[in-house]
Amino acid sequence: MEKRYLFTPGPTPVPPQVLAAGAEPIVHHRGADFREIYASVLGRLKDVFRTEADVLLFTASGSGAMESAAANLCETGDRVAVVSHGSFGERWVDICEQHGLDVHAIRYEWGERPDPDEVGAAVRESGAGVVFCQQSDTSTGVVSDVRALKEAVGDATLVVDAVSSLGAVPLETDEWRIDVVVSGSQKALMAPPGLAMVSVPAHVLERTKPSRSFYFDWRRNKKAQDALDAAFTPAVSIIRSLDVALGLLLEDGLDAAFARHVRLGRAARAGAKAMGLELFSPDDDTAAVVTAIRAPDGVDADELLAHLRDRHGVTLAPGQQHLKGKIFRIGHIGWVDVFDIASALAAVELSLTELGADIERGTAVPAAFEAFESPVAA
Amino acid sequence: MEKRYLFTPGPTPVPPQVLAAGAEPIVHHRGADFREIYASVLGRLKDVFRTEADVLLFTASGSGAMESAAANLCETGDRVAVVSHGSFGERWVDICEQHGLDVHAIRYEWGERPDPDEVGAAVRESGAGVVFCQQSDTSTGVVSDVRALKEAVGDATLVVDAVSSLGAVPLETDEWRIDVVVSGSQKALMAPPGLAMVSVPAHVLERTKPSRSFYFDWRRNKKAQDALDAAFTPAVSIIRSLDVALGLLLEDGLDAAFARHVRLGRAARAGAKAMGLELFSPDDDTAAVVTAIRAPDGVDADELLAHLRDRHGVTLAPGQQHLKGKIFRIGHIGWVDVFDIASALAAVELSLTELGADIERGTAVPAAFEAFESPVAA
Repeated sequence: MEKRYLFTPGPTPVPPQVLAAGAEPIVHHRGADFREIYASVLGRLKDVFRTEADVLLFTASGSGAMESAAANLCETGDRVAVVSHGSFGERWVDICEQHGLDVHAIRYEWGERPDPDEVGAAVRESGAGVVFCQQSDTSTGVVSDVRALKEAVGDATLVVDAVSSLGAVPLETDEWRIDVVVSGSQKALMAPPGLAMVSVPAHVLERTKPSRSFYFDWRRNKKAQDALDAAFTPAVSIIRSLDVALGLLLEDGLDAAFARHVRLGRAARAGAKAMGLELFSPDDDTAAVVTAIRAPDGVDADELLAHLRDRHGVTLAPGQQHLKGKIFRIGHIGWVDVFDIASALAAVELSLTELGADIERGTAVPAAFEAFESPVAA
Repeated sequence: MEKRYLFTPGPTPVPPQVLAAGAEPIVHHRGADFREIYASVLGRLKDVFRTEADVLLFTASGSGAMESAAANLCETGDRVAVVSHGSFGERWVDICEQHGLDVHAIRYEWGERPDPDEVGAAVRESGAGVVFCQQSDTSTGVVSDVRALKEAVGDATLVVDAVSSLGAVPLETDEWRIDVVVSGSQKALMAPPGLAMVSVPAHVLERTKPSRSFYFDWRRNKKAQDALDAAFTPAVSIIRSLDVALGLLLEDGLDAAFARHVRLGRAARAGAKAMGLELFSPDDDTAAVVTAIRAPDGVDADELLAHLRDRHGVTLAPGQQHLKGKIFRIGHIGWVDVFDIASALAAVELSLTELGADIERGTAVPAAFEAFESPVAA
């Protein structure tokens, strides 16, 4: 009977009408009823990706769509560059290495934001034809300036992992000439996990190599989608959910979503600082996806998370790899409002007190509300 | 408001409690609540696969799990054999060719059942170390004798596609020494599409090559599952559904499910024959997964299917490739009972009459009920 609170940056909480849509009776993926939903979701994905290009929809986690880029754009031995500043940057490295690519990693400290000029110079020097990067690395809360990264890498094909950022922060795929964008259903798109997407414009499709993956073969999947078919039986119930979720997102408008995420980030940061905690993620409006916070002296972040979960039913996200035990993260992507942030902060405050940490009490929630109210420039 | 009837061999109808489980609030895939479900579903999968081996669970269509076998068991240039007697046999060929394998296809006419002795001889002659086959090729309704196939191929690694047959017809993975079994959530397992599984015993894991897939890497996925973790954010809502569905299946017992499928197949065949139609799938108890029926003279099967769907809200499956327009298929896997078969037959009878075909009326449904009642040997 205990209530549960999910404040992680993916999977994220899902609106009830999105859950309900996923529980409708199963329809056949080649029938007229499904085709209507499929056409709707594919159209809405283009609107959210801000692209005229095909958005290929896979039944997979986001990592599957990430791999599809390496499998379709590169041949074994190709020199590629990866911009890495967190756990998901290292995922690009792992994927590319498993595909036998010659990886030039442009690494930043976790928590640093990549410098476009440096990246441009490093890419030119490396001779890489394909560059992989994150828009948001959820492991740190850093959001990169992918528009500037594309300008800096010039004609190289830029593949942007926007799994946690699409729908949360601006990403003008066509206007910024981003070659390939990868995303997933379970983050800012407010749907259950199980679907991944990749935008593949015509000029990129021309540059593809023979796919080393059958399931993630862009051409096979595009050919099917062009006929409003799916190459393989898709997760029809999650597609229904995603269609409803994208409808909600687009009805409010993406600009409203972007402004809300900025304000939620402000609220989370203001609350954390008010109780005397130190931020790990940047202390500015770019950090609109997730707020990463250092555990106070004498408290292990994982111990805090276990306490939050076991004692209070509240799930936050841990630090990954070398940040494990040092930081914890509050997600503010998707179906999240300021009362969720207030609850997360209040639960952290209560738990830290219960764990004996010396923190300021009663200040976090009012600070969060105040920061949330400050206006966002259009 | 029109009711819809889904009688396809995948996706199949799903019990309401399975749908409802999928609509529960999203839980984090690394939290305690999910781990409990995950442990349950992984244990139940072993019970349904009748194996002590690890059953790896992927967020993907069945074809993804099929590809995982080629990506993990074979190196480029490896000689492999494919037993093909339908559309999904050709899928094995396509997957293996995309992976640069040297494919020796052992082809049968669509609708024929592979002869184990012939297959054994052909495999030995080919020198293939890995053999891919179907237990059930849903395109034709043929169910192979995979126990005999394994005996015939000896030490070669046998990979069985049981996507549409697992839970419908007996498959004793360990007892029959089947090396690798692939399945999916959306067929006889009575859950929504979106999950695929593959059983990988220790002796097979030892034979793996460096995976050419990151997402479908058996070792990476096994390592995560061993820690009750998932390598990538899984489709948590479908996993909840699958857990409930497997619980229902195992509560009744697999033997009850196998007997029901035999009797449903009898009912479908008896009904089709009673109205004067000719069967395409075998006219015996092996055809327990799907009944394939030839369209009567002068009627295009696809026209019949469109009529069924548009006029009566009834979805059956078409013939694939060269059988398109010639046959139609009634699925009887999963959450199907004899009244579903009766409805499907009655709808076919009505639609054929409306299309001007010369068929016997009023005989199919009683014949189906009678055949369903005939006892099945244990």
